[in-house]
Amino acid sequence: MSTRSHLHSENIALSPDGRALCILDQTLLPTETRYLQLARAEEFYEAIASLRVRGAPAIGIFAAYAFYLMAKQNSNTLSSADLLARCQAHRDYLNAARPTAVNLSKMLDRCLCRAQGLSDHPIPVILSALREEALSIQQEDIAMCEAISAHGLTLLQDGDSVITHCNAGPLATSRYGTALGPLILGREHGLAFHVFCDETRPLLQGARLTTYELQKAGIPCTLICDNMASLVMQEGKVSACLVGCDRVARNGDVANKIGTSGLAILANYYNIPFYVLGPSSTIDFSCPDGSHIPIELRPEAEIKELFFEKPSALAEVRCYNPAFDVTPAALISAIVTERGISYPPFPDSLSTLYPAEYQEGHP
Amino acid sequence: MSTRSHLHSENIALSPDGRALCILDQTLLPTETRYLQLARAEEFYEAIASLRVRGAPAIGIFAAYAFYLMAKQNSNTLSSADLLARCQAHRDYLNAARPTAVNLSKMLDRCLCRAQGLSDHPIPVILSALREEALSIQQEDIAMCEAISAHGLTLLQDGDSVITHCNAGPLATSRYGTALGPLILGREHGLAFHVFCDETRPLLQGARLTTYELQKAGIPCTLICDNMASLVMQEGKVSACLVGCDRVARNGDVANKIGTSGLAILANYYNIPFYVLGPSSTIDFSCPDGSHIPIELRPEAEIKELFFEKPSALAEVRCYNPAFDVTPAALISAIVTERGISYPPFPDSLSTLYPAEYQEGHP
Repeated sequence: MSTRSHLHSENIALSPDGRALCILDQTLLPTETRYLQLARAEEFYEAIASLRVRGAPAIGIFAAYAFYLMAKQNSNTLSSADLLARCQAHRDYLNAARPTAVNLSKMLDRCLCRAQGLSDHPIPVILSALREEALSIQQEDIAMCEAISAHGLTLLQDGDSVITHCNAGPLATSRYGTALGPLILGREHGLAFHVFCDETRPLLQGARLTTYELQKAGIPCTLICDNMASLVMQEGKVSACLVGCDRVARNGDVANKIGTSGLAILANYYNIPFYVLGPSSTIDFSCPDGSHIPIELRPEAEIKELFFEKPSALAEVRCYNPAFDVTPAALISAIVTERGISYPPFPDSLSTLYPAEYQEGHP
Repeated sequence: MSTRSHLHSENIALSPDGRALCILDQTLLPTETRYLQLARAEEFYEAIASLRVRGAPAIGIFAAYAFYLMAKQNSNTLSSADLLARCQAHRDYLNAARPTAVNLSKMLDRCLCRAQGLSDHPIPVILSALREEALSIQQEDIAMCEAISAHGLTLLQDGDSVITHCNAGPLATSRYGTALGPLILGREHGLAFHVFCDETRPLLQGARLTTYELQKAGIPCTLICDNMASLVMQEGKVSACLVGCDRVARNGDVANKIGTSGLAILANYYNIPFYVLGPSSTIDFSCPDGSHIPIELRPEAEIKELFFEKPSALAEVRCYNPAFDVTPAALISAIVTERGISYPPFPDSLSTLYPAEYQEGHP
């Protein structure tokens, strides 16, 4: 891992020599803007597991590039068949870095599938296709975010004050983002919004990343602790909730950053619409409902020690640190993807937007 | 402000020479146990405002001692009438340190009233009465906490796993505490409980103080971030919520640490009983409902900077930092005081437990 100082136009990109992956290290924001150059499999894994790259769509993009680079490093002395066997192992290795977001496994499977479809071609053809696939995934994500933003914007009104949890902005995707997309797009069209940002413990993505992105986009925001959401809603300061998603089940249950289900329950209590925004790749049609979504448990130290000057509790105090929770479909007002807006009942609206043919083509 | 190293049996006590107030500095727990010796008015004010002493009942006890010491310091060259005029000013000065908890003003008024009742007595008599009053307030608090704990224990069952927010244990009161009282008392009687402790951002009283007290009491606990409460409830791990209170309105609305109303909405959604525990002095019979309770706003730096190694957001990011919120009576299963357990509808049950005669005697 080395660092370089100049700015990228993208937060994830191949290095100029094509041998490494350059990313903005999200763990150091907002006080430090550091780009990393990653080349080894262990570095790729660590970058996902430790959230240097995070956000379901961004993880998918990153993994596609990493998959390509890992294939390339193996290619010197192998047959095409051997390379494909290695690719399968690389897929499993990277996929184990985080369990909840479905984009990681979907994008790895897409790349693996592309490689397997070229099994009787020479290695340079396979590598070139994998490189193309990663670039396509990133380009598609930019287009998807724009479409999500445009659909989402139809749910908002000029002057709205919304609340968001965690970070589903450009850092988590490409450009606009998902949950923040309608706000950034609206701002470009001269609309005025205000955003309450949950700081999002324990990793503070809301404080560190969302306020940073909104400031850059010129959108006024107010940082609050997660437990203040009820009061700002009670005070009538919130007209809508906008959140991203890490996996959507077929019935509309949504896995997203821990705390999302609580925010949805509050919104429901205060009669505030609760909107979930994400690319179609986040919908897992093989998953009937939220109870089938694995919830990642992360280290206790993230709660007691990380970011703090001194530990917040004594060493012998146990912590429980689930990184995600599942929001029941019944609490969600709409799910916005690049294909349009789904309203409850979601089993119906999602299967209309994603007919069987689509689902077969996008497992 | 000086420090001393030996342990007190009480967290608030007069110094051996009777000239200062010794307190355990709660801002440094759990990593540092430091006792402070405070003697000047500004030190008393600062200790309350900066939460070196905190918890509605503990603030009341502290203020009574501080009021006595401030009167004593003024007594050398004054007439009784002049002393009483000064006492009125001291009451106003200390009362301004924090607005939400009613115990502060109630206990100061009680001490002022005691002094005023002795206006035709010599100064040593007034001072002696004020010293007595402070000691009584502290002794009464110990007895009240025991009674609250005993009543609260009837709401729990052996093996229960409860959740609590902020800190309403011995540090916030005397001995048993309020919300933690039933657990500590039950533990003394051989019952087994488990407690989920919300860390309670931004000041981390749950992480720093509640887990510390539960560990000392031998009660197993698990620290979570505030936004994880929904998931642990969804997972069926919580049988009851126990929280303290800073002010209870006549209709049963409860002001308590920010986040309490959100926890109550979650408990309501998951059908988990939500119990509020506090001494009768926390009930403000002059307050018709929660909309009349002033909510303290605290510095933005508490969210972005305090406790952190580096600021969590850029300097230009605005924060909103309300220290309390109001939980509507409709979300509360029972209010437990030393006089018994009140159930909804609270306007009725509270006026039965506290008849007009009582309310007149305890404004």
